[in-house]
Amino acid sequence: MDLEAHFLNALAQSGVVWGLGDDAVLLDTSQALYMLDLFSEGVHFKREWLSYAQIGYKAMCVNVSDSIAMAACPKYALLGMQLPKGCALSEMRQLVAGIAKACQEFKIKIVGGDTTLGKDLSLSVTLIAKSSKPLERTKIHPKDLLVHTGTLGQSYKDLTTLLRGGKVSPKSKFIRPQLKNLLGFMLSVRPLVHAGLDISDGLLAECNRLSKLNKLACKLDKPHNKAYLSGEEYELLLSIPPKHKLALLRRAKQHRIKLNFVGVARRGLSHYRPKIWHA
Amino acid sequence: MDLEAHFLNALAQSGVVWGLGDDAVLLDTSQALYMLDLFSEGVHFKREWLSYAQIGYKAMCVNVSDSIAMAACPKYALLGMQLPKGCALSEMRQLVAGIAKACQEFKIKIVGGDTTLGKDLSLSVTLIAKSSKPLERTKIHPKDLLVHTGTLGQSYKDLTTLLRGGKVSPKSKFIRPQLKNLLGFMLSVRPLVHAGLDISDGLLAECNRLSKLNKLACKLDKPHNKAYLSGEEYELLLSIPPKHKLALLRRAKQHRIKLNFVGVARRGLSHYRPKIWHA
Repeated sequence: MDLEAHFLNALAQSGVVWGLGDDAVLLDTSQALYMLDLFSEGVHFKREWLSYAQIGYKAMCVNVSDSIAMAACPKYALLGMQLPKGCALSEMRQLVAGIAKACQEFKIKIVGGDTTLGKDLSLSVTLIAKSSKPLERTKIHPKDLLVHTGTLGQSYKDLTTLLRGGKVSPKSKFIRPQLKNLLGFMLSVRPLVHAGLDISDGLLAECNRLSKLNKLACKLDKPHNKAYLSGEEYELLLSIPPKHKLALLRRAKQHRIKLNFVGVARRGLSHYRPKIWHA
Repeated sequence: MDLEAHFLNALAQSGVVWGLGDDAVLLDTSQALYMLDLFSEGVHFKREWLSYAQIGYKAMCVNVSDSIAMAACPKYALLGMQLPKGCALSEMRQLVAGIAKACQEFKIKIVGGDTTLGKDLSLSVTLIAKSSKPLERTKIHPKDLLVHTGTLGQSYKDLTTLLRGGKVSPKSKFIRPQLKNLLGFMLSVRPLVHAGLDISDGLLAECNRLSKLNKLACKLDKPHNKAYLSGEEYELLLSIPPKHKLALLRRAKQHRIKLNFVGVARRGLSHYRPKIWHA
């Protein structure tokens, strides 16, 4: 049996696979959300930084984060897997274990995909998610409060450490995104929120993005906060009407989510400089 | 503007993109079919063999072929694109033109995706297709006639020529799959057909596959035909009840599809040796 066949076997045995075997899979997904993210060696990660299990887990999380940002619950995934030719069976099994762990945590079924052998390890994950009311980026109102979840800044620090050849904690968000509570929180606060997105490129960049889309300024209280430059944070930036502030804080406490109110939406446009600082 | 931004611009201007810009796209796809195929340099093609336009076109066709095999009409695609770092803008535009050409031909809208830069050119295409009654692989009846579309054998010959450093016609199925008529034919004959699949790994290998799935033998009249070893044929193998033979031939003529009746389903199991011969 070759590496690809072993991979498919391990995946089938992981219990997170459903409906594979035909050219395609039939799903009843009326009004579903679709997203695709690549997670590639040399681009998004180096193999020294992450174990195979961490790579599998994080590849799924990158997509789950997009789903959370839309207030949608992940349901199905299709997996495009390029395994490196020299990959040992034990490494491949670790990779599957990481994928399966994320699938179990977020109740995702893998319903299809394709595998191939290549130079580098590369994953393409298509995620199908359901939402009763998807959260968009374009519904901000003037006077909305801007609030982000969690603590920003650590991802950039950890990336810098890794790039310098250092080690970071396996609990680092950069290694292991923490999305479980965030999904529950987001689904529960959806009715309170006008707009939102995940902080992929740093808070300043996301404020510029929202500003442009909504033709409103995202006025931050502390625009020079260095933590606002840190990307890949797996946290959310939300805009809410001021009257929902207390309700939001209550839900955050229930779901063990930290909130930071950082600014307000106003007339105008934002032009922050989302340039990464050099330590 | 960097290569990725140029790529997204070119794609947006191609007219085949819809609904991009958010973290995900919302589609009404109740009872849809999903499939993902990878198309990677060094694995599925060499850059010397295909122009960028041909690569873009063929990457889409690989998926369209799966859709046809299920008697489904392609509707939407998500595109995971790894562009090679040294890719010239003109080459990238050719790639988009090839993708757009296939999308226009098969009325596919690109609704999402992800791009990155890497060493090699690699595409991951997720296709969403609709079918009123998807064709499966497991519904063969004893005494069904086995029939394939088109002429087999050329793909392997062309691949051999390319591997030897030779040139093949740009009209070769290996370079430019011909799927337009096949899609129309397949949708029109769906009610006549019990089961089917596309001939990816050669007719003998597909007969073994169908035999195993259906616990029936696929008895070929000329099992030693070398053309039955040729894979990547972009043709279909179908099983039909004998009473529908004439109706099938009539539809084939209307859609300009050549049919070859090659065998019959019987009790037993098939164990053909789908080994590639050496010229």
